[in-house]
Amino acid sequence: MKRLVILGSTGSIGVSTLDIVANHPTLFSVRGLAAGRQVEKLAQQVKRFQPEWVSVADAEAAERLADLIDDGPRIVHGPEGLLEIVGIDDVEMVVSAIVGAAGMPPTLRALAKGVDVALANKEALVVAGRHMTAAAHSAGARILPVDSEHNALHQCLRGEDDAEVAALWLTASGGPFRGRKKDELTQVTAEQALAHPTWEMGPKISIDSATLMNKGLEVIEAHWLFGLPPERIRVVVHPQSVVHSMVEFVDGSFKAQLGVADMRHPIQYALTWPERRAGTLDRFDPVAVSRWTFEEPDLDAFPCLSLAYAALRQGGAACAILNAANEVAVDAFLAGKIGFAEIPKILSAVMLAHRDADDATIERLLEADAAARETAWRFVEQGVCT
Amino acid sequence: MKRLVILGSTGSIGVSTLDIVANHPTLFSVRGLAAGRQVEKLAQQVKRFQPEWVSVADAEAAERLADLIDDGPRIVHGPEGLLEIVGIDDVEMVVSAIVGAAGMPPTLRALAKGVDVALANKEALVVAGRHMTAAAHSAGARILPVDSEHNALHQCLRGEDDAEVAALWLTASGGPFRGRKKDELTQVTAEQALAHPTWEMGPKISIDSATLMNKGLEVIEAHWLFGLPPERIRVVVHPQSVVHSMVEFVDGSFKAQLGVADMRHPIQYALTWPERRAGTLDRFDPVAVSRWTFEEPDLDAFPCLSLAYAALRQGGAACAILNAANEVAVDAFLAGKIGFAEIPKILSAVMLAHRDADDATIERLLEADAAARETAWRFVEQGVCT
Repeated sequence: MKRLVILGSTGSIGVSTLDIVANHPTLFSVRGLAAGRQVEKLAQQVKRFQPEWVSVADAEAAERLADLIDDGPRIVHGPEGLLEIVGIDDVEMVVSAIVGAAGMPPTLRALAKGVDVALANKEALVVAGRHMTAAAHSAGARILPVDSEHNALHQCLRGEDDAEVAALWLTASGGPFRGRKKDELTQVTAEQALAHPTWEMGPKISIDSATLMNKGLEVIEAHWLFGLPPERIRVVVHPQSVVHSMVEFVDGSFKAQLGVADMRHPIQYALTWPERRAGTLDRFDPVAVSRWTFEEPDLDAFPCLSLAYAALRQGGAACAILNAANEVAVDAFLAGKIGFAEIPKILSAVMLAHRDADDATIERLLEADAAARETAWRFVEQGVCT
Repeated sequence: MKRLVILGSTGSIGVSTLDIVANHPTLFSVRGLAAGRQVEKLAQQVKRFQPEWVSVADAEAAERLADLIDDGPRIVHGPEGLLEIVGIDDVEMVVSAIVGAAGMPPTLRALAKGVDVALANKEALVVAGRHMTAAAHSAGARILPVDSEHNALHQCLRGEDDAEVAALWLTASGGPFRGRKKDELTQVTAEQALAHPTWEMGPKISIDSATLMNKGLEVIEAHWLFGLPPERIRVVVHPQSVVHSMVEFVDGSFKAQLGVADMRHPIQYALTWPERRAGTLDRFDPVAVSRWTFEEPDLDAFPCLSLAYAALRQGGAACAILNAANEVAVDAFLAGKIGFAEIPKILSAVMLAHRDADDATIERLLEADAAARETAWRFVEQGVCT
């Protein structure tokens, strides 16, 4: 029985993770669950999976949860609660599926303790990739990527020598606005942006997919997971989402991982690695999706992807700043405060305003993150001159 | 320097192999070359690569070769010559690229001596798969597949557990007659059949590609190389030949190997394995072939594929008999003695006539092979009642 803590258990990835756990009752036990404010949903999960610890967003959510469940798990809350819950004794794997930079501190704590992390929270690596990988390395912890693209790369790299990798090719569905030109994107709504063509996902990642910022964050994530420089991490648009990503080797050979677009596949892979387990998931039929297409991304219409490459090349705290500004801009877009086309403008302006921030320590990074959020909100309220 | 013997050096695979050797002068030395009757071409290869032994088809070819080259290599000939040349001391790898069942005895001899074989001669495994794999296993020799499909499977299986493989998916270009119905295939000519849409290959394998017998032989080859039963070896038609084959795992994940359609890629992989080497070969661009399609094979129009599955299920000497009949039928078709649609009819009739032959010993197999050839020639001369 692999003992798990699941951070973000009521979100899309958390629910899928618990589905995998339920399908393999002899393989996994749930020691801890962390969620935000969806306490009714969390209470049901607690009854079903019997964790010993539960963490919620704040004291008020903790009280509401306590009313819904019988005595049993210890309830903690807030950022400190997350750090406590990843510190439970004997935990073998933390599933890190909180959305945004908030997932970084507990993920870093788990790795520093030597606990393997199934990582869905890409922002943790985007914000503090250098610190995360260094902590994992010195404590002997592994990062198993849950993002379907990085999970695909992980699969393609099994049994291969890292020195023989020429390039990583991340596939992108292109999102709901693929094919539209720059001037056709000014009037799109949040509702349209949330309707992803192939993957069912939470709101933040759905908007990021629509702007291609999600792919940009994944380029940064791939850099930290697999150690390749930005010019050897490529993006190709593949609307059918059959090929989840590809590795190009020095001898010209490519390997790809493919399958159905269901996040339970990469989650199960991360949870059972190094073994593969038969499960109850849908089989893939290569003939059913009979036509797979590939095209270059349109960087003019979707400048967020270029901004991510720029941040990665710039180094220092640039990726953390880009990520912080993006979290603010996505919130503002979802709240109807800015238009879709303003998202990259705000990101670009925030990066320019904070271009000298460094990532010398985690504290400096968090300061840069906070400062970038403040600047981003200012641009949301006051507008950006471009 | 890996010391090589190349069987079939003047054929398509042999020439490509020497191209790889020439591009990596510090990696390989050529100890022996074997060819048939193309002695002028062979003489040039001898001058360039300076082998110590050379083998040709017969005494007459040996004399002609001796006239073309200065003293140097020892010249041997015939089936015995092939066995001698794979027996040279200190050879580290035999490239087995003779076409047809004639390549089986020297390949078997090499494996039994514990010498690794880069195997392009699929008929060796089709005819005597059980003996070949047993010999390799007991002598500790490896079979590195050169066929692009099996080479792709070998790449996809790196770092994976054989017990976690659910199925192998061999891709087929579909050959020059893809999309034609059964009654549209009666009048096709050898010239049309030789015009393969994606791969440049010798005449035997080109005809086999047109009938889909090539894919059938590859199903049998895959069975012996990777140990899966026929029902877990699938064929999917993929006309662009970008995806060279795929592995399906028990967890529902697929891995595919892809690249340009150039046999030098899989040859180099087999020669340098377990390392991958940068070379002078063309790079693959996933966007350049922007549309990849997949479809079921048409077993009504191309019954040879079904015959191969039937032979594999039947066991005993059935695969050797099918292969022998096919070699005769292809020769007869190329010589204009039979029509394209008669090829599967002859194979089917020969299999029926020899259905009780077994593969208890190599001698019994070779007897079955010889008897099947005789029956096949009789059907070629006299026609088959269907």
